[in-house]
Amino acid sequence: MTFTPTPADKFTFGLWTVGNRGRDPFGEFVRPPLDPVTAVHRLAGIGAWGVNFHDNDLVPIDATAAERDRIVRAFRQALEATGVTVPMATTNLFTEPVFKDGAFTSHDVKVRRYAVQKTMRAMDLGVELGARTYVFWGGREGAEVDAGKDPIEAIKRFRDALDFLCEYARDQRYDLRFALEAKPNEPRGDIYFPTTAAYLGFIPTLAHPDMVGVNPEFAHEQMAGLSFVHAVAQAIEAGKLFHIDLNDQKPGRFDQDLRFGSESLKPLFFLVKLLEERGYDGPRHFDAHAYRTEDAEGVWDFARGCMRTYLMLKDKARAFAAHAGIQELLAEIRGEGGELDPYSREGAARLKAEAFDRHALASRRLAYERLDQLVVDLLLGSA
Amino acid sequence: MTFTPTPADKFTFGLWTVGNRGRDPFGEFVRPPLDPVTAVHRLAGIGAWGVNFHDNDLVPIDATAAERDRIVRAFRQALEATGVTVPMATTNLFTEPVFKDGAFTSHDVKVRRYAVQKTMRAMDLGVELGARTYVFWGGREGAEVDAGKDPIEAIKRFRDALDFLCEYARDQRYDLRFALEAKPNEPRGDIYFPTTAAYLGFIPTLAHPDMVGVNPEFAHEQMAGLSFVHAVAQAIEAGKLFHIDLNDQKPGRFDQDLRFGSESLKPLFFLVKLLEERGYDGPRHFDAHAYRTEDAEGVWDFARGCMRTYLMLKDKARAFAAHAGIQELLAEIRGEGGELDPYSREGAARLKAEAFDRHALASRRLAYERLDQLVVDLLLGSA
Amino acid sequence: MTFTPTPADKFTFGLWTVGNRGRDPFGEFVRPPLDPVTAVHRLAGIGAWGVNFHDNDLVPIDATAAERDRIVRAFRQALEATGVTVPMATTNLFTEPVFKDGAFTSHDVKVRRYAVQKTMRAMDLGVELGARTYVFWGGREGAEVDAGKDPIEAIKRFRDALDFLCEYARDQRYDLRFALEAKPNEPRGDIYFPTTAAYLGFIPTLAHPDMVGVNPEFAHEQMAGLSFVHAVAQAIEAGKLFHIDLNDQKPGRFDQDLRFGSESLKPLFFLVKLLEERGYDGPRHFDAHAYRTEDAEGVWDFARGCMRTYLMLKDKARAFAAHAGIQELLAEIRGEGGELDPYSREGAARLKAEAFDRHALASRRLAYERLDQLVVDLLLGSA
Amino acid sequence: MTFTPTPADKFTFGLWTVGNRGRDPFGEFVRPPLDPVTAVHRLAGIGAWGVNFHDNDLVPIDATAAERDRIVRAFRQALEATGVTVPMATTNLFTEPVFKDGAFTSHDVKVRRYAVQKTMRAMDLGVELGARTYVFWGGREGAEVDAGKDPIEAIKRFRDALDFLCEYARDQRYDLRFALEAKPNEPRGDIYFPTTAAYLGFIPTLAHPDMVGVNPEFAHEQMAGLSFVHAVAQAIEAGKLFHIDLNDQKPGRFDQDLRFGSESLKPLFFLVKLLEERGYDGPRHFDAHAYRTEDAEGVWDFARGCMRTYLMLKDKARAFAAHAGIQELLAEIRGEGGELDPYSREGAARLKAEAFDRHALASRRLAYERLDQLVVDLLLGSA
Repeated sequence: MTFTPTPADKFTFGLWTVGNRGRDPFGEFVRPPLDPVTAVHRLAGIGAWGVNFHDNDLVPIDATAAERDRIVRAFRQALEATGVTVPMATTNLFTEPVFKDGAFTSHDVKVRRYAVQKTMRAMDLGVELGARTYVFWGGREGAEVDAGKDPIEAIKRFRDALDFLCEYARDQRYDLRFALEAKPNEPRGDIYFPTTAAYLGFIPTLAHPDMVGVNPEFAHEQMAGLSFVHAVAQAIEAGKLFHIDLNDQKPGRFDQDLRFGSESLKPLFFLVKLLEERGYDGPRHFDAHAYRTEDAEGVWDFARGCMRTYLMLKDKARAFAAHAGIQELLAEIRGEGGELDPYSREGAARLKAEAFDRHALASRRLAYERLDQLVVDLLLGSA
Repeated sequence: MTFTPTPADKFTFGLWTVGNRGRDPFGEFVRPPLDPVTAVHRLAGIGAWGVNFHDNDLVPIDATAAERDRIVRAFRQALEATGVTVPMATTNLFTEPVFKDGAFTSHDVKVRRYAVQKTMRAMDLGVELGARTYVFWGGREGAEVDAGKDPIEAIKRFRDALDFLCEYARDQRYDLRFALEAKPNEPRGDIYFPTTAAYLGFIPTLAHPDMVGVNPEFAHEQMAGLSFVHAVAQAIEAGKLFHIDLNDQKPGRFDQDLRFGSESLKPLFFLVKLLEERGYDGPRHFDAHAYRTEDAEGVWDFARGCMRTYLMLKDKARAFAAHAGIQELLAEIRGEGGELDPYSREGAARLKAEAFDRHALASRRLAYERLDQLVVDLLLGSA
Repeated sequence: MTFTPTPADKFTFGLWTVGNRGRDPFGEFVRPPLDPVTAVHRLAGIGAWGVNFHDNDLVPIDATAAERDRIVRAFRQALEATGVTVPMATTNLFTEPVFKDGAFTSHDVKVRRYAVQKTMRAMDLGVELGARTYVFWGGREGAEVDAGKDPIEAIKRFRDALDFLCEYARDQRYDLRFALEAKPNEPRGDIYFPTTAAYLGFIPTLAHPDMVGVNPEFAHEQMAGLSFVHAVAQAIEAGKLFHIDLNDQKPGRFDQDLRFGSESLKPLFFLVKLLEERGYDGPRHFDAHAYRTEDAEGVWDFARGCMRTYLMLKDKARAFAAHAGIQELLAEIRGEGGELDPYSREGAARLKAEAFDRHALASRRLAYERLDQLVVDLLLGSA
Repeated sequence: MTFTPTPADKFTFGLWTVGNRGRDPFGEFVRPPLDPVTAVHRLAGIGAWGVNFHDNDLVPIDATAAERDRIVRAFRQALEATGVTVPMATTNLFTEPVFKDGAFTSHDVKVRRYAVQKTMRAMDLGVELGARTYVFWGGREGAEVDAGKDPIEAIKRFRDALDFLCEYARDQRYDLRFALEAKPNEPRGDIYFPTTAAYLGFIPTLAHPDMVGVNPEFAHEQMAGLSFVHAVAQAIEAGKLFHIDLNDQKPGRFDQDLRFGSESLKPLFFLVKLLEERGYDGPRHFDAHAYRTEDAEGVWDFARGCMRTYLMLKDKARAFAAHAGIQELLAEIRGEGGELDPYSREGAARLKAEAFDRHALASRRLAYERLDQLVVDLLLGSA
């Protein structure tokens, strides 16, 4: 197999990912800026399908209207020339000092209003360039000092902003779905809505829950040591997997945004298997960046690696389904199947009186070691 | 202040908590069994309001009907003699080998049926003794081997069981609410519904969402390094805080179930403050146990300590509200207030055109260091 | 490749590993006891080289002298019949309640003396059966309550016990080296000497540092999210890698002791590569156990899987060394080499005056993304 | 008590701490630069004893000799005018891109030589201003890609650099001790020597071990969830606590460098108790910074808070020693005391034959719950 990506694979990158310049809390930029137009051409060249951006990835925050137009025109020309799409856009509500204590959850209603304004304008920009999904990552919506902000009030403020923006999108007749992205901490001590599930709990309380789903990010659940594949499964089961951010990360530490598949081969195999088997047809977005040790060209090694590993894991998911030994074991493990009967008074009474031999039930073989070893063999290419 | 608990404080303990005998993965029992009747009398003696249990905490799994009756009668007499209540009951779906691969999510429909049967019977027992809240902790509902079980199917199976049991409670006209308790891992590699928020996302998908809420446990969110006070705030905001499990824990390690307030003084201060200020009126349940180094009497030092520290923190929450310096700072930090106007086309247009000076907005003082230091002073008794 | 283990691979298992019966903090035994003699024959049958034990894995703590002799005789016969060796032995200083607050670090000098006695006897037993390495895992040497024990005193007590036991081994002319095994927590809140490195710092302070080294365990460093391969590298560099415990584990949670290579394929690849390339010639000991969902036969699937994955990773280490693309990249990354000159006054003066172009030095390509992707390709069988 | 710091308390701050401008991976500077001369005067004004710096905190990396002289002169005048001391200095070997893959452990010997040069010059500067301790934090000495660098070679390179610099200091007759500071990760995926103990293991392998000790930092051990007080105890016991970095941090996440005592009241109480009771007489250095939400003045609230909380905890350590109830319990817990006899053949034989009643020994009361509750009472001001 060549594992060469094509646009049909729906791989996307953010301008901020391939454009990451390698600054970190202890060190300065190591790479030059990457022009958005160049980014589009390079992405097209390596087989990516789309490019995503925050408003200010494309248009500097203090750009004049003329500058904005010039930038957008050039960017659109690059998209047209290459066939690269813009499936998703989002707002930068975290870089500027004005958002240092939150955007939609700031104590200052003027900051909240400014954040909503910035988002409306960014939605316009995204839609103008073709975006169908709009991501919200509230990186500054959180606290170090719980004395300073009522977390219940923070939730209400966040809802007010989301409801407002849903109405705006509807009023503009934008064909746009919202995807909410969680993170447990960093840059804030604790971020509100720390997990994908927190948003799954929040969405049903919105005025327009149907147009809002989630954008789970592997690194973010992994930071808290939670199972990403279980989180994504819950999102799929709830009909809410609107977008996904793929990368890699070691648990229990700072946000690394590593090359997809560089650390967590087994969990990411199960993730790819889940996405492919469940027919997820949205973008496979890599929200990651090259190591700070890379130079400008190394960024493209990074990007190619993300896609290559996805394709290798996708191929292994196919092999899993086709592997006779695995499928036999699975059939044995799953057993005869059968569902719980729906409730009826009589059924419940019968069930309550039924005799179970719990020791006999406990004795059935569950050959998980054997099955898991076959998965390891498959991953290592020895199955 | 004496910080002496009374039943009005609504402190409760599980039979399994004061009855914990100190076995762990590397060592045997260090304490003798504690008879449930004795437990009730001792709890009454230290000012507890209630006692909770799993079915088999009270009635051994292989007890005959006659034994069950005798045990329940003696237990009820102890309750009546002491005035101790049973506000909550739950099912043990984790100790027996039959549940080794899950109860409601087992591959074997017979195991699932047995688990439902065991829960119906345990609900009967709980209601018989006065329980108004029924807790579900699915400690074995999870996996080490993701190849072996489809996590989406696991969710569906869990829902089927919950829906069945809701119907059963309704059909029996039980005045009972369900409270779902999450945990990220241990004893399973990963437990489905790893966080309180996962259940907040799941509940709206049930057939009877109104009768189902959550039972957040401090140690369980803390294991994943997540903010417990934020999780509880989301549950309160959603009207779903039906019960709460109080204890202590260091993040990122095995489930410790430490004495309430023994480690996390500041986060637990904010928790108590939230519960008290938001009018939570359910039980304050301590789901914890004494160190394995304690003897049988030390268990009661442990239990007294849980309640004493709660009362000390509650007193500090009052002091926080009454502290002029804190309240002045808070007023400054909160500023003028104000809400986002609800959406209107005209309002949105006006807002989109408004000029904001983001640098000026960023310059407003937010004296969180000062505020947080006052909290530390308050906690340390120097405010 | 068949990846079939032979004794030349020096794979060993503890009696407690294949004999693990699947009890955990929330559930009872799921598997029957495994007789040590049977264990030896089964281990021989799957190609293991050796078997290790705690004193009470082999001889129950209350066995009479006659029982001890009978058990040892039968065990020895099994060893002789199969050719299985006993390269390592150790003492159980954690199961019994007497050790609930530590063995060598207990406040009670009688407990410390009993622990030393138990270790002397267990050393006799180990040596009698051929052990050349003696492991110390101080699972109960720790604290939940730092008020209760001075950690400096704990270190001194631990040293006193170790020094005593070194003298005992020398006096008995035992050909025995000690290997100290660290763990950060569980079963204690915090265990003294939480990392392999803590023992590397402690050993030089002993009376006989030459006979004492370390026994790093993958799961234990992994629990704290630390790099195991770096820890083992430091031990090798210090000449102190006397033994190693291989297994698997997810970071930031309870001690899982999973099948080797079931989770951490990439870190364990680098570990195997390090051991093989650096000529580690001691036992490859698997300190792990089968999932609790396995039955008695599943234990042997578990054991076979540990060895198979080690051999697969060893084969990949060979392939890494032989891979032209990897070696070319490595040569480029390593560059011209060169060492710092040893200190001389003149050299230092020259160096202090030298002109460096730090921008030019910063610009050299370090193609780590490319290299790491080749490693991922190699691991996934696509290199 | 007023808890007002004076120079006798030996509180120190780094220029980089009070000068921190609040940039993080997701946001730009929020505070203006702080001039070193101003910093000295402000520190004097709040009762600090000393100020520490990296070379480039004081002298910009591209300063001319004349600029350097002017800056140093002005700084020295501020020190003299205020009486503020410079007890410690260190080198910035992490900000510049040249160090992106390590300083002393870089593959490029020119980078290693440049790092040694930079350190020699920075040592000269530190000594010129009075420093007696020289700290080494190797923030870039690590890896994301273990394929790319042999960790054993990295240790050797680090040793070569340290040995060279020890010789330099001796040759210059500098009255200077080295203090090595560990961190598990960030900014590198994994940093070599991830814990204080890793350096305790490394130091005995140096050419001049006597002049090298450690500089433990609370946040850094806390990131890995390790007990800081145990790590510091081991350093003290080994005679290696040459300096200490005080701050606060939540476990299992990015490096927060929070105000001392803002999160971990109980562990930091035991730390202060240990330092004070064991007669640590070096600087109490706060390596922390204000929340990013603070303005320039808030920085001084932060700094005052660090010192105030240290003094409050020191006062509680005194109260602990004076508390009759605590001391009685401690006496009971410690029991009769007694040490292991040193080894003798006869003593060992006697001990081996001695009869112990392990059940009786296990039954002694260890009232840790009671003791720990008294500590909580003391911390909360209710003892």
